[in-house]
Amino acid sequence: MALPRLLVRALHRAAAAAAPAAPDFNSFVTRTNTCGELRAAHVGQKVTLYGWVQYQRQGLFLVLRDFQGLTQVIIPQDEAHSHVKELLSNAPLESVVRVTGTVSPRPQGQENPKMPTGDIEVKAETAEILNSCKKLPFEIKDFIKKSEALRMQYRYLDLRSSRLQWALRLRSRVVMRMREYLCNLHGFVDVETPTLFKRTPGGAKEFLVPSREAGKFYSLPQSPQQFKQLLMVGGLDRYFQVARCYRDEGSRPDRQPEFTQIDIEMSFIDQAGIQRLIEGLLQHSWPEERGSIVTPFPSMTYEEALAEYGTDKPDTRFGMKIVDVSEVLQGSNIHFVQNALSYPHGSIRAICIPQGVRYLTNKDLGSLKESAKSQFNQEIMEIICRPDGSLKSLLTKFLSEKEQSELIQALNMQEGDVVLLAAGEHKQVCSALGALRLLSANLLEAAGLALRDPTAFHFLWVVDFPLFLPKAENPTELESAHHPFTAPHPSDVSLLYSDPTKEDSEVLSHLIEALEFGAPPHGGIALGLDRLISLIVDAPSIRDVIAFPKSFRGRDLMGNAPDYVTPEELEPYHIQVSWPLEEKEAKKN
Amino acid sequence: MALPRLLVRALHRAAAAAAPAAPDFNSFVTRTNTCGELRAAHVGQKVTLYGWVQYQRQGLFLVLRDFQGLTQVIIPQDEAHSHVKELLSNAPLESVVRVTGTVSPRPQGQENPKMPTGDIEVKAETAEILNSCKKLPFEIKDFIKKSEALRMQYRYLDLRSSRLQWALRLRSRVVMRMREYLCNLHGFVDVETPTLFKRTPGGAKEFLVPSREAGKFYSLPQSPQQFKQLLMVGGLDRYFQVARCYRDEGSRPDRQPEFTQIDIEMSFIDQAGIQRLIEGLLQHSWPEERGSIVTPFPSMTYEEALAEYGTDKPDTRFGMKIVDVSEVLQGSNIHFVQNALSYPHGSIRAICIPQGVRYLTNKDLGSLKESAKSQFNQEIMEIICRPDGSLKSLLTKFLSEKEQSELIQALNMQEGDVVLLAAGEHKQVCSALGALRLLSANLLEAAGLALRDPTAFHFLWVVDFPLFLPKAENPTELESAHHPFTAPHPSDVSLLYSDPTKEDSEVLSHLIEALEFGAPPHGGIALGLDRLISLIVDAPSIRDVIAFPKSFRGRDLMGNAPDYVTPEELEPYHIQVSWPLEEKEAKKN
Repeated sequence: MALPRLLVRALHRAAAAAAPAAPDFNSFVTRTNTCGELRAAHVGQKVTLYGWVQYQRQGLFLVLRDFQGLTQVIIPQDEAHSHVKELLSNAPLESVVRVTGTVSPRPQGQENPKMPTGDIEVKAETAEILNSCKKLPFEIKDFIKKSEALRMQYRYLDLRSSRLQWALRLRSRVVMRMREYLCNLHGFVDVETPTLFKRTPGGAKEFLVPSREAGKFYSLPQSPQQFKQLLMVGGLDRYFQVARCYRDEGSRPDRQPEFTQIDIEMSFIDQAGIQRLIEGLLQHSWPEERGSIVTPFPSMTYEEALAEYGTDKPDTRFGMKIVDVSEVLQGSNIHFVQNALSYPHGSIRAICIPQGVRYLTNKDLGSLKESAKSQFNQEIMEIICRPDGSLKSLLTKFLSEKEQSELIQALNMQEGDVVLLAAGEHKQVCSALGALRLLSANLLEAAGLALRDPTAFHFLWVVDFPLFLPKAENPTELESAHHPFTAPHPSDVSLLYSDPTKEDSEVLSHLIEALEFGAPPHGGIALGLDRLISLIVDAPSIRDVIAFPKSFRGRDLMGNAPDYVTPEELEPYHIQVSWPLEEKEAKKN
Repeated sequence: MALPRLLVRALHRAAAAAAPAAPDFNSFVTRTNTCGELRAAHVGQKVTLYGWVQYQRQGLFLVLRDFQGLTQVIIPQDEAHSHVKELLSNAPLESVVRVTGTVSPRPQGQENPKMPTGDIEVKAETAEILNSCKKLPFEIKDFIKKSEALRMQYRYLDLRSSRLQWALRLRSRVVMRMREYLCNLHGFVDVETPTLFKRTPGGAKEFLVPSREAGKFYSLPQSPQQFKQLLMVGGLDRYFQVARCYRDEGSRPDRQPEFTQIDIEMSFIDQAGIQRLIEGLLQHSWPEERGSIVTPFPSMTYEEALAEYGTDKPDTRFGMKIVDVSEVLQGSNIHFVQNALSYPHGSIRAICIPQGVRYLTNKDLGSLKESAKSQFNQEIMEIICRPDGSLKSLLTKFLSEKEQSELIQALNMQEGDVVLLAAGEHKQVCSALGALRLLSANLLEAAGLALRDPTAFHFLWVVDFPLFLPKAENPTELESAHHPFTAPHPSDVSLLYSDPTKEDSEVLSHLIEALEFGAPPHGGIALGLDRLISLIVDAPSIRDVIAFPKSFRGRDLMGNAPDYVTPEELEPYHIQVSWPLEEKEAKKN
């Protein structure tokens, strides 16, 4: 039996090596444990903890906090420890202290099952105030209720909250697992690319950085797009980078002037390969506490997404899809229907709001119609399915029994449902109904109908994007739907050369030249990391997953950036401020 | 015996899981192997390779290259494959091709032992030119000999070299292992901090970024120093970041306007803890091909380093240390010696150049002395040890037998050695001799003496740096020796408050305020990644370990950055160019 026993031991060791061990949070320092770590099994051990004073009561006990949790510390009451008592009783909240003591079981009946360390307490023997906290500008327990501006000004205090500690630590963990997947499993190379570069065509959203050469500026790029393609030309055939990107969009809600993307490019890859790569990446890095991910993700073309959801980023967690009822109504004698269908891209479409009669007020329906009118210039017709199954609508008198029953069937209308119908140009109709679909869902949920599972993740590929779309401000011109560095669909390559509106290629000459020197076929993708993490932790804003975010006006409210600089500081860069007229006048007076 | 056998198998599996498996370079793509992978064991397998045409000979064979190596491909000569032959025979060098074929042993005697794939060749069956390379502006095999400017202009071609492929892949691997050490083993959190911030005091080297608010500028910080301290205040007690940093130093050799540092900060840590952390970090991430690292690293105070090596970054791979000979000479009747010793910090010091008589010419010695004079305003006296052991120098006639023999002993002079001696103010004498020590070492090595092992790594901690040093341009004022965010030595804290020259604290008010709200004691370090990797790969410049470096004038020669922008593009930022007078005039004419 000697052999098996040895093997069992060896097996044990090997298995231990294979399982990812928990990190050692106490290496290099004199603390023995974190404040979230002690359990009944530690009773009797002498421990040293470091943390912040979360709570203190009548000189009897205090609660010590660090990133991992809370531990109750018993303040000694005997004469021999009077110094420790005085020190701990008088430490202001949020002071940072060191406590050494012995782990003891809590007295029977005083255990706190809601607290992971609730079975024990630490009887303090020595203590030191490492840094006393001066009076806070607010009660820390009310901090979360304060205005976001105040919390951003004191971001370092907000960072102590379990909410932000969790979000930032989860972010770090997810990115680390992404790196393991890319580098260790699939041979990707992490390459850092420059952020001081030059303006790209149409780069109106790029920050400028004056150089010491008069009139010459660097530009902070919106993404490493050019560099990752040049890396492919350079034979670095699997590239990734957790890349800092910059976009100057002025004031926009929930955007940041600098943000992070997981930037990926591969040579010799096709679209399906990229999809499998990303599915594996998300599956590998997904935090256990958010469930697991099923792959492959479903796929939908851009045209399908537009037709069924009215948008290129459909929320597939609920139904209420857009239904084409053109065929049902084409025989009817309704003027606006016939008029819409007479145009090349004319279409009649509708969405069916389940139990709309019960959950939506007349005011709700009015506001939905008004929103379609104001945002999309789209008229909406309403059809209600009565309790007896008959339809109530301005339309019904124009529809035969057969048409009505076909309409009910096409939309799968049930009693109490409300249908919103639109006629007109395909894209406009779909966009309007797509927006109404989301608005109605919000209204239904606000009224108490559980429609979407907020913790569910419905990943979806939207493929076959058009290369170009008509410009919003001038529909006779085209602009890139995504960005100008995408390959055309194989069946459309020939069309590209007949396209009359081409980007100014001079500024991209280095990239265009590079593509002629044996550039491999390549493909890539970029994931917006801030947005992804905010979805994972279910945060209302990307500001909740960024350590030091800027306000929606692009300001750092803690450090007061951006700020004025002196004319002398501008001199080496050969620039001067052109003060707007009113400010100039104000300065004179 | 059933149990042991099962256990053996399980053990095998567990061990396999524990060992870090090699990455799969062929996942998601249709290639079966890389060009560096095939061995005799693959003979008979049908393979698909993708790579660049490195070499092609008379339509008989070609050599295919990718990041991992070279594979010889045999071009089929039979009629049935005439299309493949034509295609491969006519593909210009550096074209990118796909080849499918069968792995065969090379004919006896034609194996190439210098080539990892030298035992096999691939008999091509099908092939495709994925992208033909247009005529290169130079022969690729001569590329490395071209000027660096040309290579930077065509950086994407230079990146194909095994030299750069190795450097960038090693960099990625080292950083990945650093992350594993910090995150997975020691519980560090990777936190991204802003790069659009505001000017720090004395931040004359910070790039400015104009904002859309007239007169207000962001600044690109030189390091995340402020943010990492704020993270400590925020309870993120183990922070690290592979941080992009910016420094505008104008034109300086081997500096980059943007660079990367491994930025680390910990709460509740002391200096020894930081040292152990970094030793472990380097040991863990050190690439196997560069040997192993012995820890702990030796340690030396700033004062010792200055006294023995004349610098705060001593090269300890060789001796020739600076020796204090003040005591030996203090009794002598030499005017300049007595004069030097009469001052408070007066000192007589010397270095002994082994076999200097043989390896250094008179011209060498002259240039060494001249360099001490011009750079440090320091006179140097020369002493030569004759073959008979006697000393030859202008000094000898002033020295007794005893003094001469004490001097020989103090400097451990051997026959043929040359001593360089300096008298004056301690720091000046040490700095001058420290510079001469390095110059002499270069001269000795150029003359054929093997002094330093270029592949050896002598890590060294230099500790107890002074907080302040006299300003070079005005020695009565002080400036931070390192940066202003360091803690004073415990024994010197009281001195700090008597210091008359304090930084303007207004711009740092947010940090100073944060430190009063329960900031934990903390410590940190930053490693210059570009420099570290260039040392590991033994590259002459950090440009060789950066994918897209800038020239020493801060220009991107490939993309032509920085570049001119139009006045319209400057408008949203309320700035205009102040053209220097001569350029203004030139524009007029």
